[in-house]
Amino acid sequence: MTASPIALPLRTQYQQLRNGQLHAVQLVETAMTAWQYRGHHDHAYRTWNGDAAMVQARSVDELLTQGADTGPLMGMAVSIKDIYAVSGLPTFAGSSRRLGQPWEHSGPLIRQLLAQLPSIMGKTHTVEFAFGGLGTNAHWGTPRNPWDTAVHRTPGGSSSGAGVSLIGGTASLALGTDTAGSVRIPAAMTGVAGLKTTAGRWPTAGIVPLSSTLDTPGLLARCVDDLAFAFDALDQGLTGHEDRVLSPPPLASLTLGVPDSYFWDDCSPGVAEAVQQAIRQLEAAGVRLVPLDIPRTGEALTLFQEGGLAAAELAEFLNSELPDTVDRLDANVAARVRVADQMPAPEYIRRRRLITALSTDACEALRHVDAVLTPTVAITPPALTSLEPAGAYAKANMTALKNTMIANFMGLCALTLPVGRDAENMPVGLQVMAGPMQESRLLAMGISIEHLLGNGSAILGEPEARVVQ
Amino acid sequence: MTASPIALPLRTQYQQLRNGQLHAVQLVETAMTAWQYRGHHDHAYRTWNGDAAMVQARSVDELLTQGADTGPLMGMAVSIKDIYAVSGLPTFAGSSRRLGQPWEHSGPLIRQLLAQLPSIMGKTHTVEFAFGGLGTNAHWGTPRNPWDTAVHRTPGGSSSGAGVSLIGGTASLALGTDTAGSVRIPAAMTGVAGLKTTAGRWPTAGIVPLSSTLDTPGLLARCVDDLAFAFDALDQGLTGHEDRVLSPPPLASLTLGVPDSYFWDDCSPGVAEAVQQAIRQLEAAGVRLVPLDIPRTGEALTLFQEGGLAAAELAEFLNSELPDTVDRLDANVAARVRVADQMPAPEYIRRRRLITALSTDACEALRHVDAVLTPTVAITPPALTSLEPAGAYAKANMTALKNTMIANFMGLCALTLPVGRDAENMPVGLQVMAGPMQESRLLAMGISIEHLLGNGSAILGEPEARVVQ
Repeated sequence: MTASPIALPLRTQYQQLRNGQLHAVQLVETAMTAWQYRGHHDHAYRTWNGDAAMVQARSVDELLTQGADTGPLMGMAVSIKDIYAVSGLPTFAGSSRRLGQPWEHSGPLIRQLLAQLPSIMGKTHTVEFAFGGLGTNAHWGTPRNPWDTAVHRTPGGSSSGAGVSLIGGTASLALGTDTAGSVRIPAAMTGVAGLKTTAGRWPTAGIVPLSSTLDTPGLLARCVDDLAFAFDALDQGLTGHEDRVLSPPPLASLTLGVPDSYFWDDCSPGVAEAVQQAIRQLEAAGVRLVPLDIPRTGEALTLFQEGGLAAAELAEFLNSELPDTVDRLDANVAARVRVADQMPAPEYIRRRRLITALSTDACEALRHVDAVLTPTVAITPPALTSLEPAGAYAKANMTALKNTMIANFMGLCALTLPVGRDAENMPVGLQVMAGPMQESRLLAMGISIEHLLGNGSAILGEPEARVVQ
Repeated sequence: MTASPIALPLRTQYQQLRNGQLHAVQLVETAMTAWQYRGHHDHAYRTWNGDAAMVQARSVDELLTQGADTGPLMGMAVSIKDIYAVSGLPTFAGSSRRLGQPWEHSGPLIRQLLAQLPSIMGKTHTVEFAFGGLGTNAHWGTPRNPWDTAVHRTPGGSSSGAGVSLIGGTASLALGTDTAGSVRIPAAMTGVAGLKTTAGRWPTAGIVPLSSTLDTPGLLARCVDDLAFAFDALDQGLTGHEDRVLSPPPLASLTLGVPDSYFWDDCSPGVAEAVQQAIRQLEAAGVRLVPLDIPRTGEALTLFQEGGLAAAELAEFLNSELPDTVDRLDANVAARVRVADQMPAPEYIRRRRLITALSTDACEALRHVDAVLTPTVAITPPALTSLEPAGAYAKANMTALKNTMIANFMGLCALTLPVGRDAENMPVGLQVMAGPMQESRLLAMGISIEHLLGNGSAILGEPEARVVQ
C-alpha cells in the first residue's frame, strides 16, 4: 500500500500529473485494484463509480498532455459521502431507498469539485441521514474499521465510508459532512486527518440536510497537508474570498490551550495517554501550553443529550420532503426523530439562542490562544456486537460524539490528526479547534504539528493486509 | 413649525452647527417648546429626556466652538423607540413594567449613535414588545396621529411614537425597529420617510427582541435625504465596511417594478390612487416601469396570518427572560403569544425554511429591476374606536402589515416616503423595496424620487396647529 500512487501526498500527485510521472488512469487503476482486493470486504462504498471514473481519467490524461489545467484536483481520486447530491449518481443518504430528484443534482460544492475533473471513485456509506457518530447502518451494513481484521469494529460516522476509502486505497481525498463530529470521528477512528469547516463557510445546498443550522461540509485525507491542499483547491470558489492556508508557523510561536476537564472524561484505556504524549512532544518542541477550559461544555452536553437542534430539524425535513421514509428509519435514528416531533417551538428557539450564546463565550475564550488541543474521540471504536444490548448504542454514540460536538455547538472549526494507538491498538486522534473562519490558520498549525509528530502512515504504519472474505 | 430649526434638513443642520448659525442648545430648546406646546397631547414619549439633553447640548456647543467634531449627528435632536436599551434611561418596551437590567445597557447601535453626541430627546412609545402594526398600547395609551385633530387615529406601529416625535417637532431623527413593518407603517401613517434595513446588516443586540430572526433596526426622518444622511452617519461603524449612499441616479436610468396584484388589494379609498399618481409622475419623468409580481406573496401572507416566526420567538423570549410579564400582556399581544406556545418545533423549522426559500425567489425576481414600488400601507390610519369591536383589531392589524411584511419575509430592504393624502385626508406612503443589502442604492433612488415628487412637507404641508387639551 505504501507504494500506491494514490497514497502519495496530493502536492506530489499534482506535480507528477503535470510532469508526466503520474497519470490519472494510473490512479484509477490503483483504486480499482484496491477495491477488487478488499473493497467489498471494507464496504466503504454504497455506489462504486470506477468504470465511469476510468473513462473520464483517459480524457483527463489527454488534457494533461496538452497542457490543459482544470484545477488542483484534476485527475485525483476522490470519494464522496452518499449524502451529497452528485449529478448522474444515485443518492440514498443511508436510507433504505434512492431519494431521486432533487437529490441527484450537484450543489455548489460538488460543482466546484467536479469542474476540476477529479476521478470520482464512488459514493461512500453514511449513517442514515447522517444521524449518528459510530458509522452503523441497519439498511446497508456498517463499513469495517480496517485497523482490526479480527473484530468488526465501527469505522466512525456518520461519514462511515470516508476514512475507510482512504485507508483502503481507493481514494486520496474523501468528502464528508460534520454536524456533531461526522468528519472527525471517522477520521480519528480510521487513522486519517479530517477538517470540519465553520458552519456557513461552505454552502450546504445539494447536501441532504441533517441540521440546517449546524451541517458543515468537510474533508478527510491521509495527512493535514493533503487537507490543506484540497482546502485551497476549493475554498476561494466557494467563499469568493482568497484565504489560502498560511505558511506553517514555527511551533515555538504557538500558544495552545489544553482543557483540564470534560474532554478527558470517559476515555477508553490508552486514548488520553496517546494524546497527552503528543501534547508533551509539542511542548518539548517549544509550544507554549496554557490551561484553557472551554466555557459551558456541561450546558452543551446537556443540550446535545436532549437532541440538540438536529433531531427536530431532521424530523421537519423528513416530514416535509421525504414523508415516506419516516416509517422505514433505522431504529436508532427513528427513536430520536420521534421524540423531536413533540418538541414545542419555543424550546427549539431557546436551543438556537443557547447555541448563539455558547458560541459567543467560546469565541471569547479562544481569543487568548491559537488553538485548543483535546482527544478527538474519547472511546476506542466499539465492536459492533458490543452495541447490541439495549441502550448500548445510545451510550456509545453519545460518548463518541461528546468531544467533537463542542466545536459544532460553539461555532468553531476543527481538525483531527492521528497521533498514536490506544490499548486496543486502534488509532487515536488529536483534535485541534480554532475560532470561527480560522481554517487557513488552523490548517497551517496542523501542518506544523504534523511535521513534528509525523503523519498517519509514519505513526500507524499500514493496517494488516487481508484477503477478501 | 416650518420655521423650526429642528425641521431643517440634516445636511443643513450639519453645516450650520459647524459654522455657528445653529446651536445644539437651540435645537433642544425648540424641541422642549414643541413638547410643552403639544407633546403631552401627541403622547409620543414614554420617557422625556429634555433636561438631560439640554445639559449635554451646552457642552456640545462648547465643543463645536472649539472645532471638535464627534460625528455627523453631533448636536442633532434624536428620539429613540423605547425598545432600545439606552444606558441611563428606563426601558419598558411597551410593557406595563420597567424591564431593568440588562435592558438598560446600550447595545452597539446606540453606542455608535451616542458617541456622536446627539441630543437624545427621549424614548418614544411602542406597541408592547413591538408586536403590532397599528401603534396601540393598552398600558400606556396610544400616541395620536397628528394629522387628525378631531379623531384619535392610530399613528402606526409598532414604533408608534417615532413618526409623531418628528411631526410634533421634538426630534429630527427617530430610531425605530421593523420586524414586519414597524418602521414603515408609522412613517407612512404620520407622513414621514422611513428606512427598514436588511436583516443582519445592523446588530440587534441591546434591542428587546420580538423576532430574533427578522428584527431590524430602522430610521425615520422628515425626508429620504435625511435618512441617507443618518444612514451614512451610522452604517460604517456598524458593518465595518464603507458603503455610502450613492449619488442620486437620473430617473431615466431607473427600471422600477410595479406589481399587478396583492399590494393593491384591500386599499382604503384614495390610497392606491395617491400611489398610482406618484408612479405616473415617475413614468412621465423617464422611469422605465415594468410589471413585476413578487413571487409567492400568497404563501407569505398565509405564513404571516399563522403568526410567522415572531409569535413563537416572542413567546420563547418572554418565557425565558421575562416570565413575570407573560400574565400581564396587552390582550391583543397575549392572544398571539399563547397560540405560539403550542406550536411544534418542526412547524417552526418549516417556517424558517419557507422564509429562506421565499427570500431566494424574491431576490431572483428583483434582479431584473432596480426596485419595486407599492403602497406602503393599504389602509387609512384607523380611528381607535373602530378597533373596539371583537375581531376588528386583528383584521386592521393584518391589513396594515400585509404590504410591509413582504420585505421582512423576503429578506429585502425597503423605504417609504409620503406621496399624498387618501380620501380621509390622511398621509399615504410609497414603498420602495430593493434586494438584500442594497440600502445605499435604495436611498440614492429614494432621493431621486423625492426630488421629483417633493418631500413630505411640500406634499402634505403641516398638520393643523392645536392647543394642548
